[in-house]
Amino acid sequence: MSDLRVAVLGVGLMGADHVRRIEARISGARVAVVNDYVAEKAEQLAATIPGCRAIGDPLDAIADPGVDAVVLATPGPTHEKQLLACLEHGKPVLCEKPLTTDVDTSLHVVRREAELGKRLIQVGFMRRFDHEYAQLKALLDAGELGTPLVLHCVHRNPAVPHGFDSSMVVRDSLVHEVDVTRFLFDEEVSSIQIIKPAANPNAPEGLSDPQIAVLRTASGKHVDVELFVTTGVAYEVRTELVAEKGSAIIGLDVGLIRKGAAGTWGGTITPGFRERFGQAYDTEIQRWVDAVRRGIDADSGDFTDGPTAWDGYAAAAVCAAGVESLTSGEPVEVKMVERTSIEGA
Amino acid sequence: MSDLRVAVLGVGLMGADHVRRIEARISGARVAVVNDYVAEKAEQLAATIPGCRAIGDPLDAIADPGVDAVVLATPGPTHEKQLLACLEHGKPVLCEKPLTTDVDTSLHVVRREAELGKRLIQVGFMRRFDHEYAQLKALLDAGELGTPLVLHCVHRNPAVPHGFDSSMVVRDSLVHEVDVTRFLFDEEVSSIQIIKPAANPNAPEGLSDPQIAVLRTASGKHVDVELFVTTGVAYEVRTELVAEKGSAIIGLDVGLIRKGAAGTWGGTITPGFRERFGQAYDTEIQRWVDAVRRGIDADSGDFTDGPTAWDGYAAAAVCAAGVESLTSGEPVEVKMVERTSIEGA
Amino acid sequence: MSDLRVAVLGVGLMGADHVRRIEARISGARVAVVNDYVAEKAEQLAATIPGCRAIGDPLDAIADPGVDAVVLATPGPTHEKQLLACLEHGKPVLCEKPLTTDVDTSLHVVRREAELGKRLIQVGFMRRFDHEYAQLKALLDAGELGTPLVLHCVHRNPAVPHGFDSSMVVRDSLVHEVDVTRFLFDEEVSSIQIIKPAANPNAPEGLSDPQIAVLRTASGKHVDVELFVTTGVAYEVRTELVAEKGSAIIGLDVGLIRKGAAGTWGGTITPGFRERFGQAYDTEIQRWVDAVRRGIDADSGDFTDGPTAWDGYAAAAVCAAGVESLTSGEPVEVKMVERTSIEGA
Amino acid sequence: MSDLRVAVLGVGLMGADHVRRIEARISGARVAVVNDYVAEKAEQLAATIPGCRAIGDPLDAIADPGVDAVVLATPGPTHEKQLLACLEHGKPVLCEKPLTTDVDTSLHVVRREAELGKRLIQVGFMRRFDHEYAQLKALLDAGELGTPLVLHCVHRNPAVPHGFDSSMVVRDSLVHEVDVTRFLFDEEVSSIQIIKPAANPNAPEGLSDPQIAVLRTASGKHVDVELFVTTGVAYEVRTELVAEKGSAIIGLDVGLIRKGAAGTWGGTITPGFRERFGQAYDTEIQRWVDAVRRGIDADSGDFTDGPTAWDGYAAAAVCAAGVESLTSGEPVEVKMVERTSIEGA
Repeated sequence: MSDLRVAVLGVGLMGADHVRRIEARISGARVAVVNDYVAEKAEQLAATIPGCRAIGDPLDAIADPGVDAVVLATPGPTHEKQLLACLEHGKPVLCEKPLTTDVDTSLHVVRREAELGKRLIQVGFMRRFDHEYAQLKALLDAGELGTPLVLHCVHRNPAVPHGFDSSMVVRDSLVHEVDVTRFLFDEEVSSIQIIKPAANPNAPEGLSDPQIAVLRTASGKHVDVELFVTTGVAYEVRTELVAEKGSAIIGLDVGLIRKGAAGTWGGTITPGFRERFGQAYDTEIQRWVDAVRRGIDADSGDFTDGPTAWDGYAAAAVCAAGVESLTSGEPVEVKMVERTSIEGA
Repeated sequence: MSDLRVAVLGVGLMGADHVRRIEARISGARVAVVNDYVAEKAEQLAATIPGCRAIGDPLDAIADPGVDAVVLATPGPTHEKQLLACLEHGKPVLCEKPLTTDVDTSLHVVRREAELGKRLIQVGFMRRFDHEYAQLKALLDAGELGTPLVLHCVHRNPAVPHGFDSSMVVRDSLVHEVDVTRFLFDEEVSSIQIIKPAANPNAPEGLSDPQIAVLRTASGKHVDVELFVTTGVAYEVRTELVAEKGSAIIGLDVGLIRKGAAGTWGGTITPGFRERFGQAYDTEIQRWVDAVRRGIDADSGDFTDGPTAWDGYAAAAVCAAGVESLTSGEPVEVKMVERTSIEGA
Repeated sequence: MSDLRVAVLGVGLMGADHVRRIEARISGARVAVVNDYVAEKAEQLAATIPGCRAIGDPLDAIADPGVDAVVLATPGPTHEKQLLACLEHGKPVLCEKPLTTDVDTSLHVVRREAELGKRLIQVGFMRRFDHEYAQLKALLDAGELGTPLVLHCVHRNPAVPHGFDSSMVVRDSLVHEVDVTRFLFDEEVSSIQIIKPAANPNAPEGLSDPQIAVLRTASGKHVDVELFVTTGVAYEVRTELVAEKGSAIIGLDVGLIRKGAAGTWGGTITPGFRERFGQAYDTEIQRWVDAVRRGIDADSGDFTDGPTAWDGYAAAAVCAAGVESLTSGEPVEVKMVERTSIEGA
Repeated sequence: MSDLRVAVLGVGLMGADHVRRIEARISGARVAVVNDYVAEKAEQLAATIPGCRAIGDPLDAIADPGVDAVVLATPGPTHEKQLLACLEHGKPVLCEKPLTTDVDTSLHVVRREAELGKRLIQVGFMRRFDHEYAQLKALLDAGELGTPLVLHCVHRNPAVPHGFDSSMVVRDSLVHEVDVTRFLFDEEVSSIQIIKPAANPNAPEGLSDPQIAVLRTASGKHVDVELFVTTGVAYEVRTELVAEKGSAIIGLDVGLIRKGAAGTWGGTITPGFRERFGQAYDTEIQRWVDAVRRGIDADSGDFTDGPTAWDGYAAAAVCAAGVESLTSGEPVEVKMVERTSIEGA
């Protein structure tokens, strides 16, 4: 099929990020429609994207025949109605968390989709797609750690927006660790307790921060989560899995660290140049493509954004001297023409 | 402009990677033409890409009016002729290293491009686009480390292809550190010495491995490089910059580590969720787009590849219990319907 | 005063360690008396230490006029009587934990000492003397982290002796984190909860392992402790302090790691050679002293246990060549006589 | 035998350190004689040590019948005469590096000792006694890394004393890596080259700093050493051993890191409490011994320097509540008497 025509509903911080992502880095899709309750914001954004329209009513956007699929980045209270519309029109939808803002409406949405007999709704728990969480899950599923027993989580934000209250720590922050627990353990959570230690002096009046969540799963596994959203430091998300045959920790800014067999700790070395420099190749090619397009559009005569022919010549000169030294073992002077003799003063 | 039409010349390991990269991850470009000296390989690849042709002669591919720009991933000895053709037709070209295989032909290419008065050639020294090298360069350019003095490099491969000889260690491996030196220090290399220690017992007969390269730059900076291509371990590329006001090291599998002010060592914590989970969002959206396209093409009724509505409901149920516990401080049981009551047995 | 004459009561694993420690590494003290309820064990040990006697009754050992101070490494249930005897005779005593095995007898001992008006009893919570805990305490007391808020602890053993039961996890393992909490926070613990997750399949029948302890201090600080004594991995003791202005973690096998100002993480570089090599100097001198004493006692003609005069000569030869190369810049051959010309074949 | 009576010759920075070390931490030896060319310094120091005399002439000190063994911390140029005196009197001697200040006199000392047929001289290359170097040597000797091939060393000082010149970098700093090379590889160094990069702007006039030393051993192993003594940062000593089956690095402030089998990197977890807290036990006992001696000498009524009986009582109270919670699973309040009820206001 040709490129998927996506409608992005809600183009605040997160929705606008998704628009840029789809346009700049996602292959096989384009943003066909944007919508926001601030109509001008959607219109201004649409104007910057070739072939993109702003539609004022989110339900119209969902129903539009020029839309194949929907990304929901609207406020949570509007999700139920919009998800039901997606189901009605048979439109696949990626819904930023939460699914809806309460249990009953969430269950209603689940039931409606089940009645349709199609899987149209995906929820935006993006940690499942993070390299480190994926590594941790793979390690667990491979059975190398044996039975999982305990999960320790840390979820720290440097600051939160004005108006962020104690229950939002649970609903908006903890919700990620709830999904991580269910993802890693493949079972449901059976009970939860929130402990409120003495508050951080820097927390706004009325915000209970930090909080400690203690979860227990159906089979009796223990999960604890430190939620601390006014640290003033940085964004820290850490997860340690303790299991029968060892433990593994992610989020220490040093990759997955595993403890286990023979009393050792450590990580894995990048196995090859593709893994080590894959990002560099992507960036190199993207920036070159952009430079060539700019060069053509502007007729500037410069179609590069990176090492030039001169850099290739200089490298050749050094390597030639290196090969000479390989034989002699002696230092060899590198011979190059003056750059100005070629490119002018 | 519309998507850049790229010809990829040479679709071996590296060229085929570039084709996949442009199709799957690069925005604003598509592969219009592929070429290889094994014609069938190019034809088979072209058949998998909508709107892509195979052209048997690389010079025809370069000249083709349906080609806006060229990626050269052909063997080094063919580069000179192909680069000159690109210059002749005014086609921007990204040339995998080496520019050409000797100094004289490299200089000839540089001169021809200078005579044209356009920058059409970019060379594939991809490390300049790696996050860690970019961080190191930024740190240096910001002046925080003061004058750079010494560079220690390690370049290790677990193994090399059959036939890899001692001079290829210089031309194919060391060449990257030559460019890193020039990139970081913004000056030319003035002399080079290759030291050959007693060889690794596992190195093939006739291959001098490891080798130690000692470089000196125009202003007298010292660079040493351990080149060791039969380690049997993994791919390790490490660079330590020693400067007037501290040092910094990349490639230890733990991000950039800096030593400096006040006798401290350490790195930087990921500042926010965009930096921490940007890759996860990209992967999430790409996999969702792919799942939706598959679902539409196959009419399968499943348009998801990630957390489902049920996962959203389960999270809502746990968070609702959490909010209840936030008030009471007691453990609260999580209430959920049976999954089979909805989805059947 | 001359060397302190110490009686060590109980010479099992820990007591015997203390005897060796005092004899080999502690200055200003010697073991004058040993005692054990297995009389032969004490006698055999005494026979190996010049000037040391075995005394069969612990109370006689405490009362002995040739004993200045007592180390108690006897089983916990005997502590009360022995501590009271130490108080009665005015003998300073270092008592391995626990003080006594229940709260009432502990309080009785505290009261008796207070009535005497002397501080004679020290309890063996050795973590307060560990470099990393001392660093953490210093960091906290210096105020750089602001108000402490939360403490996360991990206490893992690879295995426990036969008969170790669930309450011993609390009394013998957790007791250390109880003292760490009181030491770091300078306040009492006001409540405690023990959570029992599903047990490790490798834990012996009847042992609840792992356990999670949740403590709350008088001012409302939260402490959680993972106690896991059948990991099969190694001995892991980790403590993370989360505070108003950053956090710090010890026990990751990499020194104290601090997160804080400006979103950075890291540790401190050893400032000088005394800190870096202090342990090496101690070991060097101790091994040399031991070698000289052995050489004198055995009249062996060898009074060294480390680098010899030849090693000094070899280093001199290399450095002399180095100084020559410092001038010339060229490689200089090192000239040395044949070792066999001096020491024979 | 009774305590070894040691004469410490030269009580500058290093010699005074050795005096304190022997008095405070070394078992089986005492400082019987001190000497310095500044006679008053020796006399003042002797006055602080029970049973210690100052002797004005180093040769008299060596000859003194009350001296069993000698520590030489005098300036290098005086070593030859003093070492020969030690040999003449059959006194074991620990000689701080260098053995002597030139090759000929070093060889003369070696020959004289060989003629005597006794090993009396040990040289102070203390790194051989450092835990990390010992670990590296053990790893190598165990054969797990296969044949060693290359050694990369870094030796950085924040600053050097006034008057430190270029050749002292070789003689006083590099000399340690020369010994490390010989220690790890068990073979002699056959050639050496000193490379002088452009100097650090902060280096004093006339000091070539940094310097790069390139060594080659008898069997062809390569060693490079960065010597940089005006870094302004801290004391950094790092050694990376590259071998046939992997590599290992010490001195990164994180313990020995090993790379090898299966593309992994990492270290070893402390196996047990003895290794983890051995230093803490030593410190605990030493500080307790010192406190008891102080208490006795001063008749102060305080014989503790650490946790008191109250700390033992408090721990007992918390653990008792913990055992109660172990049964109930509920939070249990900790019951304790008021501290003031015992110790007064």
